[in-house]
Amino acid sequence: MAWSLSELAALTGTQVIGDPKCLVSRLNALHAAGPGDLTFLSQIRRAGELGSTKASAVVVPSACASQVSHGLISENPYLTYAQLSQVMDPDGLPFAGSIDALASIDPSAQLGENVSIAPYAVIGAEVTIGEGSLIGPHAVLYPGTQVGRRCIIGAHSVIGSDGFGFAPSEHGWVKIHHLGCVRIGDDVEIGAGCTIDRGALDDTIIAAGVKLDNQIMIAHGCSIGARTAMAACVALAGSTHIGADVTVGGMTGFTGHLEVCDKVHIGAQALVTQSISEPGHYAGGAGGVMPVAQWRRNAVRFRQLDRLAARLARVEKANDSTN
Amino acid sequence: MAWSLSELAALTGTQVIGDPKCLVSRLNALHAAGPGDLTFLSQIRRAGELGSTKASAVVVPSACASQVSHGLISENPYLTYAQLSQVMDPDGLPFAGSIDALASIDPSAQLGENVSIAPYAVIGAEVTIGEGSLIGPHAVLYPGTQVGRRCIIGAHSVIGSDGFGFAPSEHGWVKIHHLGCVRIGDDVEIGAGCTIDRGALDDTIIAAGVKLDNQIMIAHGCSIGARTAMAACVALAGSTHIGADVTVGGMTGFTGHLEVCDKVHIGAQALVTQSISEPGHYAGGAGGVMPVAQWRRNAVRFRQLDRLAARLARVEKANDSTN
Amino acid sequence: MAWSLSELAALTGTQVIGDPKCLVSRLNALHAAGPGDLTFLSQIRRAGELGSTKASAVVVPSACASQVSHGLISENPYLTYAQLSQVMDPDGLPFAGSIDALASIDPSAQLGENVSIAPYAVIGAEVTIGEGSLIGPHAVLYPGTQVGRRCIIGAHSVIGSDGFGFAPSEHGWVKIHHLGCVRIGDDVEIGAGCTIDRGALDDTIIAAGVKLDNQIMIAHGCSIGARTAMAACVALAGSTHIGADVTVGGMTGFTGHLEVCDKVHIGAQALVTQSISEPGHYAGGAGGVMPVAQWRRNAVRFRQLDRLAARLARVEKANDSTN
Repeated sequence: MAWSLSELAALTGTQVIGDPKCLVSRLNALHAAGPGDLTFLSQIRRAGELGSTKASAVVVPSACASQVSHGLISENPYLTYAQLSQVMDPDGLPFAGSIDALASIDPSAQLGENVSIAPYAVIGAEVTIGEGSLIGPHAVLYPGTQVGRRCIIGAHSVIGSDGFGFAPSEHGWVKIHHLGCVRIGDDVEIGAGCTIDRGALDDTIIAAGVKLDNQIMIAHGCSIGARTAMAACVALAGSTHIGADVTVGGMTGFTGHLEVCDKVHIGAQALVTQSISEPGHYAGGAGGVMPVAQWRRNAVRFRQLDRLAARLARVEKANDSTN
Repeated sequence: MAWSLSELAALTGTQVIGDPKCLVSRLNALHAAGPGDLTFLSQIRRAGELGSTKASAVVVPSACASQVSHGLISENPYLTYAQLSQVMDPDGLPFAGSIDALASIDPSAQLGENVSIAPYAVIGAEVTIGEGSLIGPHAVLYPGTQVGRRCIIGAHSVIGSDGFGFAPSEHGWVKIHHLGCVRIGDDVEIGAGCTIDRGALDDTIIAAGVKLDNQIMIAHGCSIGARTAMAACVALAGSTHIGADVTVGGMTGFTGHLEVCDKVHIGAQALVTQSISEPGHYAGGAGGVMPVAQWRRNAVRFRQLDRLAARLARVEKANDSTN
Repeated sequence: MAWSLSELAALTGTQVIGDPKCLVSRLNALHAAGPGDLTFLSQIRRAGELGSTKASAVVVPSACASQVSHGLISENPYLTYAQLSQVMDPDGLPFAGSIDALASIDPSAQLGENVSIAPYAVIGAEVTIGEGSLIGPHAVLYPGTQVGRRCIIGAHSVIGSDGFGFAPSEHGWVKIHHLGCVRIGDDVEIGAGCTIDRGALDDTIIAAGVKLDNQIMIAHGCSIGARTAMAACVALAGSTHIGADVTVGGMTGFTGHLEVCDKVHIGAQALVTQSISEPGHYAGGAGGVMPVAQWRRNAVRFRQLDRLAARLARVEKANDSTN
């Protein structure tokens, strides 16, 4: 399968450099591309590498158009690459295009047009799935879950499981039945192995355009605002509300009952323990690794940090009274 | 479906305030409740909000009984709410009530009375499941797993998988076959996406009344004491033994071969690297997030912490010799 | 089922102590073993415990041979134990030995000799699986995944799912189709609940002899070198390359686009944010837990660490100018 540059230009709204009939059959990275490949310059500071690529054609911004013989001009080559990856995918998304006979679908579930369901997915009672959505292999949608249009629910993700709620009693923990559901907006993608619990009384809400990586945990009663993206292994405790256009680095956790405003960006492996009301970039944790002997000495000092601060204050006071 | 207050009082051991025939059809939160809803006052310091609720009835402690027109008196409204959530759940627990035809059950498995098994669950050879237990969709019970009575095993949880055990050799890692099992007591609830490995030689043990949230990892040969509760994404390395009535915050890890005594309470995203022999509250980690510029300056200093301490000691010594 | 010491000596290349006809029927730990059990001395410093074991026979190094009546001599008792665990496993690996009728196998998949596939595994189009490999229950191999010989893919692990790749646009995130695959070498073992994404353009590569524990996340375009072992809940961001013979403690994370050289050993719950080019031991994080009151005082100081360092510098300067 091959595409001409003129064909790809029309599909992506870009302009051809060189021969419009130049054929490409595969997308590839700048350093790895060979004849027949189309590649792209993701960062203008890497323009020096254009001379050595063996690709047949390159997507570049207009400022670099003179540096390539054949290609496409795009002021956002990374976005054009994303569009091309869809066009030039020989197979399309795995498990798309049909409702597998090996799925378990409750008769009361309502599926929109062109919904795809992979093997061993479980679609519970009263679930609704909007048109064009794809439910991956082994995904489980508990009863009452609502999924919007053009969503992808990844393999092994569990949507609408019971929240972790128990009341202590003298006879041990008493289970709280969860009466809410999970509602997922349009254009949401959820990766593999995520768990999103339904609410105890309210619904858990994933707004339109949200993108969740793999192994993410969203507890009961949380809400995630539109277009927010979270990297793998993020976990939210219950009733935490995240705004729109937020990004969260991998392995970061949130304690419960927090409010995080729109346009907050948080680094990896941090812990958010208080609400955030100012947009901006945040980080936490003790920083990166170091040789173990150095780390051990520093970690011991962390345990003494308040005492070190008190000693410093004493020295300052002594100096003040001396001077 | 609706319930009278007198009916609910009888079922929960509470006393009616106002009209015993007052009908309620749904549980709801104090701020969100409307006509026909029953709500509850979980914290007495929020009693000021009672005046503005639109709920038809409220569960309150006796001290607040005069502040509501209709309701139930309970000295533990949160526990009463838990009981009511079970009574007023219109659907009951998802996938309860039957053994799904789409489950894979080894003929040698022994199932007690009223066991429920959801679609695509795998019940291995010689597994035993006590009466009233519910095995969620896609849960896998490896051969020899023992599950007590009234347990819930969540969707996609894997019980009895091989532990991570290999002996190094000059030809690479040599696999250790795991000859132990997993034994789970009565009234245990395990969330979605957990993995509990069987022991290499001993069994891995989850005692009665334990509650595990989602995506928890229990390694081979661990034991968890009665009624201990762990929030999501906690991980234990091998042969670590946790006492009874312990609580663990989300994302906290334990290294292997530790002993943690009863009634220990540990915060979120911490690392337990030594045994704990005193009950009480513990925490770890570098604390919550901060603006990234501030964090970067502090994290750099963490790498220099031992040198900072040495510099402080030098200053103290110089001052001592001066004075 | 029982084995004579002479039989076991022949199978493991060890020498008999005492009666070659001594029969043992079970492997067990030193402290727990009873009559009929075979045990082993894993650490020579525990030789003092040999006198009190009730085991019928013990695997010991030659230096301790005189301390046991019956047993096997091995200079590496732990390795011998691993070999014995395979010989003395009454049941063999769960789900080994057949291709379950309840698996979903694409007709274009190529399975080697003696491949085992457990219930509800999904084997996508064009997947190849080498001889002797075992695919666990509910494991999903996306189209194009290549698995080597003698591999074990654990229950619920997902191999070849889409990477987390989206280009930002004014209309929200645009999905990047992932055109690479996952290639897994020989003798790889992957635990339960792992997710390994396929590459956007390159393949994700797991080299021969790699061992991954449960709930590990490997992002798109990563590579893991031969014989590297990772404990549970480790997560790698995209395009990070780990060398051979590396070990990684549980819950440790790696940011993207890093290079970690061979023979690096990293502790638990750390974050690797920069490439590592020197073999050796590394660690990170704030260290273990402490009583919560102590922790709170220290964590507050962590937020002031750079200011504390500045105050210390001022004191030093003042002292210098005084002296």
